[in-house]
Amino acid sequence: MIEKLSEHGCFGGVQGFYQHASAEIGLPMRFSVFRPQRAVAGEKLPVLFYLAGLTCTEETFMTKGGAQRLAAELGLILVSPDTSPRGAGIAGESDSWDFGVGAGFYLDATQAPWSKHYRMYSYVVNELRQAVLDEFSGDAQRIGIFGHSMGGHGALTLALRNPGVYRSVSAFAPIAAPSQCPWGHKAFGNYLGADQSAWLQYDASELMKGLRTPYPQGILIDQGLSDKFLAEQLLPEQFELACKQAKQPLTVRRHAGYDHGYYFISTFMEDHLRFHHGILAD
Amino acid sequence: MIEKLSEHGCFGGVQGFYQHASAEIGLPMRFSVFRPQRAVAGEKLPVLFYLAGLTCTEETFMTKGGAQRLAAELGLILVSPDTSPRGAGIAGESDSWDFGVGAGFYLDATQAPWSKHYRMYSYVVNELRQAVLDEFSGDAQRIGIFGHSMGGHGALTLALRNPGVYRSVSAFAPIAAPSQCPWGHKAFGNYLGADQSAWLQYDASELMKGLRTPYPQGILIDQGLSDKFLAEQLLPEQFELACKQAKQPLTVRRHAGYDHGYYFISTFMEDHLRFHHGILAD
Repeated sequence: MIEKLSEHGCFGGVQGFYQHASAEIGLPMRFSVFRPQRAVAGEKLPVLFYLAGLTCTEETFMTKGGAQRLAAELGLILVSPDTSPRGAGIAGESDSWDFGVGAGFYLDATQAPWSKHYRMYSYVVNELRQAVLDEFSGDAQRIGIFGHSMGGHGALTLALRNPGVYRSVSAFAPIAAPSQCPWGHKAFGNYLGADQSAWLQYDASELMKGLRTPYPQGILIDQGLSDKFLAEQLLPEQFELACKQAKQPLTVRRHAGYDHGYYFISTFMEDHLRFHHGILAD
Repeated sequence: MIEKLSEHGCFGGVQGFYQHASAEIGLPMRFSVFRPQRAVAGEKLPVLFYLAGLTCTEETFMTKGGAQRLAAELGLILVSPDTSPRGAGIAGESDSWDFGVGAGFYLDATQAPWSKHYRMYSYVVNELRQAVLDEFSGDAQRIGIFGHSMGGHGALTLALRNPGVYRSVSAFAPIAAPSQCPWGHKAFGNYLGADQSAWLQYDASELMKGLRTPYPQGILIDQGLSDKFLAEQLLPEQFELACKQAKQPLTVRRHAGYDHGYYFISTFMEDHLRFHHGILAD
């Protein structure tokens, strides 16, 4: 049962915010959906999932991304989940901005007390996808995924582990090698435990090493060169190396003067939507 | 002295947030400026001021409006002030969402204790305009103004009182006849006193009655028909009547399915930018 929180007219379509009781998470989860008019009218359209970064919610992308105009024109349904469970009641879960609430890292935690609710990987890949397809006229055969920072990590890892589910993937300033950066160490150490071999399935650069051209139509990454997290946390060069080994076509565009925020993201949003549409429209 | 709070690459230009000591307000005031690349390079470009609505700040329009893409393309500098003084320290100034902090109503208060700091009219028309022109490569002869809700009221009243300053004016869901609605009664009663004759200079519909075609190239208003404030607070029909009397060309577009928020505003942003550009580019 999906509960409608609000719906708003937007570029001829409907911008909606919803809540449902998630079986994976064991708590109510919120998400947002933008449907172009054609989807509102019942036409099955491609679905593009957006995973947001640390501290964000299901609202961030819809409010700041500036994607609806072109999504309406191209005929893409946009979906964005929240970035973590809310209300799990775990002691200290809101103490850090880069771990716990707002920082689910799109993985299934294995360590107590996180393992009970912090299951964003299975939630996004399975439960939310199915819920959206059932309810909002999405085409199960034409699903893409992208995201920003922690959500770029999420998009890459979900796509690399599920090439049968996602047909296109891109990212803005992704955490591209989380096993090798402080954000990843903190999150993976707490959610997955000290054994680093368990981390590899959630590390895009590590995952890519075991693959061979999983996305033959390419992967697109945009990265700002004024991004203060670039050198220490994001490490796109690790992902570039892995793609080279895996013969995975990859375009990393580095942009002088752009930082880590939504003024950067919105600037290159059009290119990402056209990239996904070019693959999903087939 | 303008202090830079932050600047961000955005659509080839610069999205900036600034602060200065305002003589009119007697406090530090924040504002935002988007400059297309051509303005960053020193070319004098038209300047379009945006006045935001109740509870908003200088960030709202730049974050949610989705205007920078087209402003970059058309060559328009965008400027948005905060919606009230902050830090005046008046007892109760933050108790209401529709009066005091975040609700300056773009007027010069005459009643104590508001009259000392709440001078948004003079601040926007004179001080901020001059500061922006001096600092950011704006063309003093090509200035337009628009806004939303309380800021739509602000845009219309500032434009009607200063047709020599502003060459173009438009609004999203403006408070079009504040003397006749609860928001206006509360704000004007407290800021301007009980004598309603003092209110008329801040009421777009009343101002228009004393004018004759102040904006011969027309005024554009967009209004959502699912806007919950339409019937009680906004009263665009009063402004339509006044424009008819004043032989002022006016286009009011009423949109089924659109509400009072930024999903509505961003949908019609392109039309407003093109409207202003068409007048200011001459």
